[in-house]
Amino acid sequence: MTLPDRLLMGPGPSNPYPEVVAAFSQPLLGHLDPEFLRVLDETCDRLRRVFSTTNPLTLPISGTGSAGMEACFVNLVEPGDTVIIGVNGVFGERMCEVARRSGATVVRVEAEWGQRIDPQRLLDARSQTPVARLVAVVHAETSTGVENSIEPLRVLQDTDTLLLVDAVTSLAGIPLEVDGWGIDACYSGTQKCLGVPPGLAPVTFSARAVERISTRTAPVQSWYLDLGLIGDYVGSARKYHHTAPTGMIVALHAGLGAVLDEGVDTVWSRHRSVGITLQSALVDRGFALIAPDGARLPQLTSVQLPVGLDEGALRRRLLDEYSIEVGGGLGAFAGVAWRIGLMGHTARARNVASFLGALDNLL
Amino acid sequence: MTLPDRLLMGPGPSNPYPEVVAAFSQPLLGHLDPEFLRVLDETCDRLRRVFSTTNPLTLPISGTGSAGMEACFVNLVEPGDTVIIGVNGVFGERMCEVARRSGATVVRVEAEWGQRIDPQRLLDARSQTPVARLVAVVHAETSTGVENSIEPLRVLQDTDTLLLVDAVTSLAGIPLEVDGWGIDACYSGTQKCLGVPPGLAPVTFSARAVERISTRTAPVQSWYLDLGLIGDYVGSARKYHHTAPTGMIVALHAGLGAVLDEGVDTVWSRHRSVGITLQSALVDRGFALIAPDGARLPQLTSVQLPVGLDEGALRRRLLDEYSIEVGGGLGAFAGVAWRIGLMGHTARARNVASFLGALDNLL
Repeated sequence: MTLPDRLLMGPGPSNPYPEVVAAFSQPLLGHLDPEFLRVLDETCDRLRRVFSTTNPLTLPISGTGSAGMEACFVNLVEPGDTVIIGVNGVFGERMCEVARRSGATVVRVEAEWGQRIDPQRLLDARSQTPVARLVAVVHAETSTGVENSIEPLRVLQDTDTLLLVDAVTSLAGIPLEVDGWGIDACYSGTQKCLGVPPGLAPVTFSARAVERISTRTAPVQSWYLDLGLIGDYVGSARKYHHTAPTGMIVALHAGLGAVLDEGVDTVWSRHRSVGITLQSALVDRGFALIAPDGARLPQLTSVQLPVGLDEGALRRRLLDEYSIEVGGGLGAFAGVAWRIGLMGHTARARNVASFLGALDNLL
Repeated sequence: MTLPDRLLMGPGPSNPYPEVVAAFSQPLLGHLDPEFLRVLDETCDRLRRVFSTTNPLTLPISGTGSAGMEACFVNLVEPGDTVIIGVNGVFGERMCEVARRSGATVVRVEAEWGQRIDPQRLLDARSQTPVARLVAVVHAETSTGVENSIEPLRVLQDTDTLLLVDAVTSLAGIPLEVDGWGIDACYSGTQKCLGVPPGLAPVTFSARAVERISTRTAPVQSWYLDLGLIGDYVGSARKYHHTAPTGMIVALHAGLGAVLDEGVDTVWSRHRSVGITLQSALVDRGFALIAPDGARLPQLTSVQLPVGLDEGALRRRLLDEYSIEVGGGLGAFAGVAWRIGLMGHTARARNVASFLGALDNLL
């Protein structure tokens, strides 16, 4: 079986970094092998650097980004807790659903899909609901290409309310400062700007998030995602919990190495540069950017197609004739918009040129 | 970074099949790419053949074997349900914990670690607790090397009690007949006899298990593991749930291909043959097999070391001097026993010879 060589410009997965592809040809190690544990420790160190945190509880969860989301809610929320969630797309909506299934009462702070959430509205909601245990918001809404501003929420540090941030599409794509912004819990996925295949969810938890978990009265409803148990394996106790996906962790180690060797700031610049180039070229061709100026992600561009173009047919021709994948719109944007990713190793000027060349040929 | 080339003879992961190693060098595909969906469909078909079932709801869960366990419990159990669980090792114990966290009342049917559970005792427990919604048992107890007999439990088909089987270490290692034995739900892991790295949990559900799920009154507490939602993606609806770990699924596809090309019966024979060779040679050297004759797994051998040998030091020398990994004992067997795996691609006569040669040199 030979699979086609795609340029992955959808909402994820992105093309893996060459270092990651090479890592998959390394021999497989056991989850208790000293050589593997060294790689695991280094992976957690590298995650701290990319998250910009000193949090000891920083590790890859053995599932995709949504498992990271669920790990955060099931560990931080107890039945009956109130949580405030910003909703302006699919992933804010998903957080509400995961929180409800964890037994939370959810207070929604909504913005229109394609618009950012004013952080002051989240803070106002917290003032009106001081009992809220958590404010949760998506940093980079993959469904619309909108960036929600996180930094102003750091004042939550002065309250008893934790700040939980979805960084699935933002980590290693745009500036994110876990410690600097007072983020208490943050989850991501490997298949976006980290340039690693899907399968792991990096997470990090502040001291007060760890305190919240350790003073729970109800057990965490998920055994698989119980951070107390997982931390006993990843931490110095090395107590067996589940068989860690060693091959994927070696790949993540390599992806993080590529990002850190280039420099996180340089990686952010590269994403910004190619995103601006693409967005400007799309406007020139009559496409309409969905996210407003100032809240527009460079790594995930959501655009409405010019009237008269059949998005599905065109997208299929890009795939069939040029082996370029872009994503369709979601929700109200289904059938009228594309989501174009330039994430991780895909975020290269050459790939923008390939895409625009193919698009021009097809239009 | 160069990782050491290990012979993985612990309790998993095993060495991947060469076809699996090759699959990781294939280009990465998106989770909605038509070429990937074809691979996904074939993977589910191949899983059906290896599970020996026609169950439509057969798929890989995006997590390790323990995520498969949790998926079964959270989907099949509602808060307040009574479940009967066979416990004769770590993994039966884990099922109790996962079931409790799903809100179940657990009735334990225990056997000593290292002994099998008489299936009649599980059936008797069910007769005494006819309200039980589920009987769950581990087929191959990885903590002790014991096989629990499943086939006699098929009479549960004539009751309202479902049969749930942990096949993490048994699938593609010893005979397992999901349909033939009346198993309603079964989960496995990729890193044992399937010869694929850890990261996915194949699961399969019978028609009456699906009926049980679809008539739930409470929502499944895990969004990530909700089989109704996952089935909408893997099934014909192709509705996005989470980003499937496409690279791992391509690897699983390859591992299943290797097993099916060789023939499942032949693969079982190969595991049996190398297991018997190893066990006989260990007895010759003064090691004591823990599992009794007739309930002894060929793919995972649990042995007590001859008195006077330092198991930790010897195990470490095997790793350092020969790059051979074996596992330590668990529970009462910690410090006095080894667990030696011959699973998947590791289950080769050549590897038994390597291990015995190294052992003889060290003794």
